[in-house]
Amino acid sequence: MLQPKAYVFDAFGTLFDTTSVLARCEETFPGQGPELTALWRSKQLEYSWLRCLMGRYEDFWTLTRDGLTFACHALHLRIDQDRLDHLLEGYFTLEPFPDTAVLTRLGDIPRAILSNGSPTMLNAVVSNSGLTSRFQHVLSVDAVKSYKPSPDAYRIATDCLGLEAKDIVFVSSNGWDVAGAASFGFRACWLNRQNAPLEMLGQKPEAIIRTLGDLVP
Amino acid sequence: MLQPKAYVFDAFGTLFDTTSVLARCEETFPGQGPELTALWRSKQLEYSWLRCLMGRYEDFWTLTRDGLTFACHALHLRIDQDRLDHLLEGYFTLEPFPDTAVLTRLGDIPRAILSNGSPTMLNAVVSNSGLTSRFQHVLSVDAVKSYKPSPDAYRIATDCLGLEAKDIVFVSSNGWDVAGAASFGFRACWLNRQNAPLEMLGQKPEAIIRTLGDLVP
Repeated sequence: MLQPKAYVFDAFGTLFDTTSVLARCEETFPGQGPELTALWRSKQLEYSWLRCLMGRYEDFWTLTRDGLTFACHALHLRIDQDRLDHLLEGYFTLEPFPDTAVLTRLGDIPRAILSNGSPTMLNAVVSNSGLTSRFQHVLSVDAVKSYKPSPDAYRIATDCLGLEAKDIVFVSSNGWDVAGAASFGFRACWLNRQNAPLEMLGQKPEAIIRTLGDLVP
Repeated sequence: MLQPKAYVFDAFGTLFDTTSVLARCEETFPGQGPELTALWRSKQLEYSWLRCLMGRYEDFWTLTRDGLTFACHALHLRIDQDRLDHLLEGYFTLEPFPDTAVLTRLGDIPRAILSNGSPTMLNAVVSNSGLTSRFQHVLSVDAVKSYKPSPDAYRIATDCLGLEAKDIVFVSSNGWDVAGAASFGFRACWLNRQNAPLEMLGQKPEAIIRTLGDLVP
């Protein structure tokens, strides 16, 4: 794809593998790790959209905790505070996907992260993964107390970079995020890691790639 | 619970059984009815929240079609236009839950429906179920092009009834809808048909009931 003036990346699921917490879930609740991890992730996202619509923003760390609590209740898993904290802290040490190694090969073009994650979560996961030097900006929607796919959330990136949306390639593995980014005006690039079908949200990405390596000119 | 000045009811899942479409799904795709029905419903709701946040409203009929299309793609089910229409039309004839019979025993207090459903969907399902005379108002969020749990959507009911939210009991089987209603200021009543855990959205319903019969004084 034509080189942009900047790249903006989603974090969870795009650069960092949220299924990294699967091992902790499975260790804590043998045999139920996959189901717990999936429901947890799904509730975490659902709560971000619902709270944003209700005008009751809480940061993503709170929603991550609330999503896990709900998922444990729904699956009839008893969890105490220590184990809850242990699972949650998995978010601080999510593994970066191996293909993040190619980020250094994108040339001198500015790179930023724009994530729903709270500043604490983001700083921890970026720092622990050793990717700090790959990004000029690590941006959290917490600055505007709104979640993606709200335009207010995406605007953080254009404001920070001082660029128009049309000059920025926005990369996400999350289909709904790609739709939100395209709707906002970014050049949306869907990193379709799971070979998932396109979300039916009336927006098409400019490009669909299978690995971050496909971004390298 | 203390009698309100009006009752407002959610429609899908609360008065009308969305699993009614299960039979059509199962007939069309034997063995995959339950999974298809669940994913369809989940996408339908997700798309309503996402489009609302993106500022890209489309009516609920469109989202119901889009959710079904996505669900078929995700489950690798091939569907042509005729079969798609057949499944969709199941929404016009959803079965009312048997406990809707008690609605006549709520006294002279005004009753309304407030639903995400498009006016066409709502009019059809209410009329086909024979419940028309049980409600003074059948209200669709389409009037404001916003979806629940956005406050704009709930305000349709207070505006129409000319009452304050605190004087209205809002009944829904959907935990996220109950949270939105409580956040808006309604006396929120959760009709917990599925014995589900409470959604962790920072809002508690005033009452939790297991059947509409529990509303009768």
